[in-house]
Amino acid sequence: MIKVGVIGSDNEAMEILLKRAKSEIKEAIEFIRFDGENIEKQALAAAHEADIGELDILMKGIVPTRTVLRAVLSEEFSLKEKKLLSHVAIIHLPTFERTFLITDPGMNIQPSIEELKIIIENAIDLAINMGIETPKVALLSAAENENPNMPSAVNAFELTDYYSDREDAIIYGPLSLDLALSKDSVENKRFKGPVAGEADIVVVPTIDAGNILYKALQLFAEVEIGGLVLGAKIPIIIPSRSDSTDSKLFALRNAIHQVKGKR
Amino acid sequence: MIKVGVIGSDNEAMEILLKRAKSEIKEAIEFIRFDGENIEKQALAAAHEADIGELDILMKGIVPTRTVLRAVLSEEFSLKEKKLLSHVAIIHLPTFERTFLITDPGMNIQPSIEELKIIIENAIDLAINMGIETPKVALLSAAENENPNMPSAVNAFELTDYYSDREDAIIYGPLSLDLALSKDSVENKRFKGPVAGEADIVVVPTIDAGNILYKALQLFAEVEIGGLVLGAKIPIIIPSRSDSTDSKLFALRNAIHQVKGKR
Repeated sequence: MIKVGVIGSDNEAMEILLKRAKSEIKEAIEFIRFDGENIEKQALAAAHEADIGELDILMKGIVPTRTVLRAVLSEEFSLKEKKLLSHVAIIHLPTFERTFLITDPGMNIQPSIEELKIIIENAIDLAINMGIETPKVALLSAAENENPNMPSAVNAFELTDYYSDREDAIIYGPLSLDLALSKDSVENKRFKGPVAGEADIVVVPTIDAGNILYKALQLFAEVEIGGLVLGAKIPIIIPSRSDSTDSKLFALRNAIHQVKGKR
Repeated sequence: MIKVGVIGSDNEAMEILLKRAKSEIKEAIEFIRFDGENIEKQALAAAHEADIGELDILMKGIVPTRTVLRAVLSEEFSLKEKKLLSHVAIIHLPTFERTFLITDPGMNIQPSIEELKIIIENAIDLAINMGIETPKVALLSAAENENPNMPSAVNAFELTDYYSDREDAIIYGPLSLDLALSKDSVENKRFKGPVAGEADIVVVPTIDAGNILYKALQLFAEVEIGGLVLGAKIPIIIPSRSDSTDSKLFALRNAIHQVKGKR
């Protein structure tokens, strides 16, 4: 049984989602609903249940994201497991038969190199729990080679070097989006190097870059998108207002993978 | 007659382009080709011709971008008309029947607010020359409302305020990509405000964000893309290595619009 706490479930969109989740997801799920006028209090109650091990997943319903995150980060609890919480968007492109993660398009504005390391490790953990062996991680930048004036390229070089001995994942950059995701581009540009066109995880240098990529995929590609917050004791699903019910279900399925991977 | 200087034209891809341009573009074009072993010297010769008014457009062939820009920016010439050169990608989405500009995805890494003003004005000039009356300019950010911790949002607020009296263009932000380009998103999110879903120009906060958006459109949408460098005496076409011949032709057509708009 997977126990999912839902903060702010008392509305039509969430009713539809919970009903579909019950019938379409094969794992047995129990939804514990946190509704009421004082939503801050409800969020704290949900965080408390998560903290004492009574929940496997936390899901944001129709409440502000900051209400959920404030409760999760409250000093009353020790829900924060890693030094940093980070956001991962899980992207499935049915026409390309391809799934990959984008991080961090939702929480960390302009992560430092130390913060990027935690962001990368959170995403690698998720990818491995999703069944991806030796995830390939692309460190995105506008530069494809060394450019001392471009912070994203400088960080990518430093991170590639830092992770060069790592065996359970391949981390490489700077790479442009096309060299990260498209084998055609890799061929056309005669690019030789790791990750080339096969990224399982794309790491964006700033929240702006990530958010723009996320929205471009929603607008221009046929796509299922799910969002998870990682680094807490349990996965936290933070759907964006523009996500469809399908995308929310997709996020829930991925959170369940994450829970089962950890067990 | 439009005189186009081409730096590095001596190769198959450029031969195909020049031939197609001659037959498919209705304006009479003369190509002046700058080829030779010492390409730096050729680039300087082209910049000289441009400087003395002998060229209407400069186009990069198969040579490094920095070779072209170094020649253009050389102190020997006074080709730089504005305080800053900036890059504009011209995007045409045939399936959405829509054309818009992205700036600056190619030259300015992390523009300051004063640099953003020149970038914005360069793009407004181009849009007006392309026949867009009162261009709508979206200042992109991951934030859709005030967030003092997010530089892109802070800049967008300041620029919106700065341009609030402007009459030949509407400048507004912070806006997420979907609120800039999609009327459906505007409706779903019940967003009320200027530009809403109808941006003619999207201004990205960093080169990384712009480059990722550009590449996402190339990878995931049916698209024609052209790139121009603005702010010099004449438009400079800097195709990216991943651009198709169609995209290069599209860029050339837009540069011709720009030249005719200025005459």
